[in-house]
Amino acid sequence: MTPSRHDIEAAAARIAPHIRRTPVMRMGGGDLGLGMDLILKLELLQATGSFKPRGAFNRMLSATLPAAGVATASGGNHGAAVAYAARALGVKAEVFCPTATPAAKTDRIEGYGAVLHRIGAAYDEARIASEARAAETGALIVHAYDQPEVLAGQGTVGRELSQDAPEATHVLVATGGGGLIGGIAAWYAGTGTQVISVEPEGCPTLATALKEGRPVPCPVGGLASDSLGARQVGALMFEVARHHVAEAVLVTDEAIRETQRRIWQALRLIAEPGGAAAMAALVSGAWVPPAGARVAVVVCGSNADPAKVV
Amino acid sequence: MTPSRHDIEAAAARIAPHIRRTPVMRMGGGDLGLGMDLILKLELLQATGSFKPRGAFNRMLSATLPAAGVATASGGNHGAAVAYAARALGVKAEVFCPTATPAAKTDRIEGYGAVLHRIGAAYDEARIASEARAAETGALIVHAYDQPEVLAGQGTVGRELSQDAPEATHVLVATGGGGLIGGIAAWYAGTGTQVISVEPEGCPTLATALKEGRPVPCPVGGLASDSLGARQVGALMFEVARHHVAEAVLVTDEAIRETQRRIWQALRLIAEPGGAAAMAALVSGAWVPPAGARVAVVVCGSNADPAKVV
Ligand SMILES: Cc1ncc(COP(=O)(O)O)c(C=O)c1O
Ligand SMILES: Cc1ncc(COP(=O)(O)O)c(C=O)c1O
Repeated sequence: MTPSRHDIEAAAARIAPHIRRTPVMRMGGGDLGLGMDLILKLELLQATGSFKPRGAFNRMLSATLPAAGVATASGGNHGAAVAYAARALGVKAEVFCPTATPAAKTDRIEGYGAVLHRIGAAYDEARIASEARAAETGALIVHAYDQPEVLAGQGTVGRELSQDAPEATHVLVATGGGGLIGGIAAWYAGTGTQVISVEPEGCPTLATALKEGRPVPCPVGGLASDSLGARQVGALMFEVARHHVAEAVLVTDEAIRETQRRIWQALRLIAEPGGAAAMAALVSGAWVPPAGARVAVVVCGSNADPAKVV
Repeated sequence: MTPSRHDIEAAAARIAPHIRRTPVMRMGGGDLGLGMDLILKLELLQATGSFKPRGAFNRMLSATLPAAGVATASGGNHGAAVAYAARALGVKAEVFCPTATPAAKTDRIEGYGAVLHRIGAAYDEARIASEARAAETGALIVHAYDQPEVLAGQGTVGRELSQDAPEATHVLVATGGGGLIGGIAAWYAGTGTQVISVEPEGCPTLATALKEGRPVPCPVGGLASDSLGARQVGALMFEVARHHVAEAVLVTDEAIRETQRRIWQALRLIAEPGGAAAMAALVSGAWVPPAGARVAVVVCGSNADPAKVV
């Protein structure tokens, strides 16, 4: 059930009334301390502060929504997106988050009117609770990454980027459960543009799966675990990634932190750790572009307390 | 010496290697609490955090730069832009700021390697000091708004916006000394798109000039005075504005503050008071679009301490 380009086009049409077409900006790398020009997909300007409404709306607009509404588990951003979409579509939402989810995210979830449950130390425990609850109430599960409609929705980021920056030869994407990169890699499959996964050393989900040849449970830790802290990549995304993700590189928390600072200094943007991770591969040198590369970076989340960034 | 479209095109070509083409984003107004769609020119993502490098580079690239380099006076953003341009072009810069200029701006000026002088309570005293200093050293004055090359440089914001959002019927622009709106109005002159000035009640420079029929000194106060606190609009811009600015509306500091909060909530952007002022006209209802209007807002500055915004 790898999403096809056609599935992603259909998702784009379905969600268009509800999401923002986020901008692409080109800039010299000098202000970021990098010796290369960059193409930035500023997906952190999306409604709710991350790309997550794309998949959430696509899932919810593709289903018949039950009276019990929707249920989901999330490190926070997906929950905010589901809450936002549920409000827009007039249904109830219950969101299960680990206790570590920061206020920048839980405030959004509750602000959009969803019922918030805090449970467990990491995403996976919240996921189990959300599934139990949905079985009880009949709510529709909107998975954070492992559903075809979610992958196709996230793939619309790739579609927009390829339209607005057709020159890109490499696209850097942060990976947690892998919905974002799965959708983007499905879009770019066969085009020659390489899609590269960036993961924190503390949550090496796709790097480990590619090494093992299948999704396997990974440690969940570090600065970005509230966005990249899935226990393992999804089965659906893995079928895409094994063929269409060129490489998976790891970055340290220090590199993510330094990248957040540079993004603030050069762009006055607040990127959350997961939103800065992809660029951290360039800042740290964990990934070095080949000569002649035209590098695009997806900056994908902004839900952080500025006091922890600036 | 009103800049022509040709002057603005020439400026665009001259400064292109040095500035960012900032993005335009369309969004529903709901997330901002507004009942209309918006077109945002995200000029706060410009290098140095405001539009000011456009005029500064155009002035400096149009002149022979003396050994003494450049001198300027500024509430802060223009000074940061001159410092940035001077570093890029390899010349010295001296920047005179009022004592009230915040650290978000003086840090940039010094960070880019300029010599910073703090003098006087408002921009106008710093301006006098900068002119005295230039007379002494032979440095080139890069005026914050009242030079033809500066107007033409700022006009490139209008050129980009008209290309990226040709549907805009109204453009809201914040005014201090008036270089930004003067350049933008010169670009749009004769097109039918209306350019509207927004000013804080504490610094009503163009509103007063339009009423009096000439630039006159105004009070300088309030939240946005470090960006919109010129004593009066420039003579050059006034010739443009009297013919090509449709209207000048005033907003309160409370409206600016509330707009900063909404921009953070809906977009996770840090807009400084001067950068939020134009949108504050919509948030406060100080300006109400006519039926069928397609409203563009120039969000033009981001150099603020997030702790004062969030
Ligand atoms: C900001 C941000 N970036 C990246 C990701 C990773 O997305 P995925 O789980 O689809 O790999 C997330 C997931 O929550 C996120 O919030
Ligand atoms: C953020 C910001 N907005 C608007 C203005 C006003 O520009 P002008 O003086 O050209 O009217 C300034 C000037 O410093 C500024 O810094």
